[in-house]
Amino acid sequence: MRFVLQVCYDGTNYFGWQTQKNGITVQQTLEKALSLILNQNIKVVASGRTDSGVHAFGQVCHFDSDTTIPPTKIADAVNCKLPEDIKVLKSALAPENFNANKSAKRKTYVYKFYLSDKKIPLLERYAERLNKNIDVKKMEKASKILIGEHDFKCFCASGSSVLSTIRTIYDIKINIIENTLFSELEIEVCGNGFLYNMVRTIAGQLVAIGEGLMTEDTLKQAVLTQNRKILAKTMPSKGLILIKVNYGIDLFL
Amino acid sequence: MRFVLQVCYDGTNYFGWQTQKNGITVQQTLEKALSLILNQNIKVVASGRTDSGVHAFGQVCHFDSDTTIPPTKIADAVNCKLPEDIKVLKSALAPENFNANKSAKRKTYVYKFYLSDKKIPLLERYAERLNKNIDVKKMEKASKILIGEHDFKCFCASGSSVLSTIRTIYDIKINIIENTLFSELEIEVCGNGFLYNMVRTIAGQLVAIGEGLMTEDTLKQAVLTQNRKILAKTMPSKGLILIKVNYGIDLFL
Repeated sequence: MRFVLQVCYDGTNYFGWQTQKNGITVQQTLEKALSLILNQNIKVVASGRTDSGVHAFGQVCHFDSDTTIPPTKIADAVNCKLPEDIKVLKSALAPENFNANKSAKRKTYVYKFYLSDKKIPLLERYAERLNKNIDVKKMEKASKILIGEHDFKCFCASGSSVLSTIRTIYDIKINIIENTLFSELEIEVCGNGFLYNMVRTIAGQLVAIGEGLMTEDTLKQAVLTQNRKILAKTMPSKGLILIKVNYGIDLFL
Repeated sequence: MRFVLQVCYDGTNYFGWQTQKNGITVQQTLEKALSLILNQNIKVVASGRTDSGVHAFGQVCHFDSDTTIPPTKIADAVNCKLPEDIKVLKSALAPENFNANKSAKRKTYVYKFYLSDKKIPLLERYAERLNKNIDVKKMEKASKILIGEHDFKCFCASGSSVLSTIRTIYDIKINIIENTLFSELEIEVCGNGFLYNMVRTIAGQLVAIGEGLMTEDTLKQAVLTQNRKILAKTMPSKGLILIKVNYGIDLFL
């Protein structure tokens, strides 16, 4: 039987999702906990990898097992064996022919900022600081350049080995959240898939445009010519969260 | 000359505000950084101590120095010498006869919760989990019992050595913040001062009442009789933030 999980993690202390030799990853930590409680060697397949230090609220993965634990109870069972920074929020039996990677239709990422002239320690873990005078309208206008199907080759960090660098972005929203103590700015990006570092590179370009350090035309040129040298900086991993993976059906009823 | 600072800190890794022998505190870390940049031995006086693990957005403290650094520039100067989890948000020359402790008129604390049947790692650092079925109206009704001047002796952890355990609570608000991914609940308490553990004990009682584990009458009795044995649990430190100290004037124009 195939099972599906919604996994939430604070990526600060992990070398990303995918198992590798350099350090502890979310995938190997989850596989170890699942193997322990199901008493068999479990391998999980995720919607996609997340980079080192990136967080997830709604990562989705599947695994195969002949366990007799009721599907919805697997979450609580595995959570007992997981560290505090990784928890399974939901578990269920997977739909027929489901594959967490191949069945994924769209993914939504959010990059979080707070607006302040000084660093605020209580916000630094999950967000990047921006100055209050950032031009949100300029960011919104420039974001339209990226909507649609484009070759995002120059938005992808080197070292990646994907077959195609063509991706479709369905929507980019700039959300302003006003709190009593401070304001937050979120860049919400929804697409059919993302290259290594792609969302953080997009966030970096929109911020540079909002700060007046880059023009819309430069961004247009980058998308057309795939010239990485004209791009502004890529944002650090700590502000990025994989929010949701959409499969066209509700996996957890 | 006397200077005043607004200090923000993530209290997770500190043994509270006040200098002590058992571990590193916020006060000693700040004094060390100030002494370094001002090139003289600096002692700070805060609005009050915060307990081990408690956070602050708006702690206020003063210190005396004959520095020639412009008052508003002290924040940036000292921030260079402070760790990432403590930062000075504002600095200014103090008003005449100002004392960060004695001039404080009211303090506002917020205790943060999120509503979920599972632990959410991305929220666990600064909030406590509550089940979604908590009765907010019951909490709001019960909070009225605590408004006004009362002897809060039984809301104070043992080991404290204050002269009087009488305090005035001006207001308690239960704020519900609906996000797309989850809901938050805040208990916001404003008073003329708070005893050791007092806000966390208040939060614990209101939660117990909201969960149906305690009655309003029991809370009334506790306030009248100072019988600590009938009280429900005290909440952990991680969800508590000192938001603002009010001095009746704007310290940072």
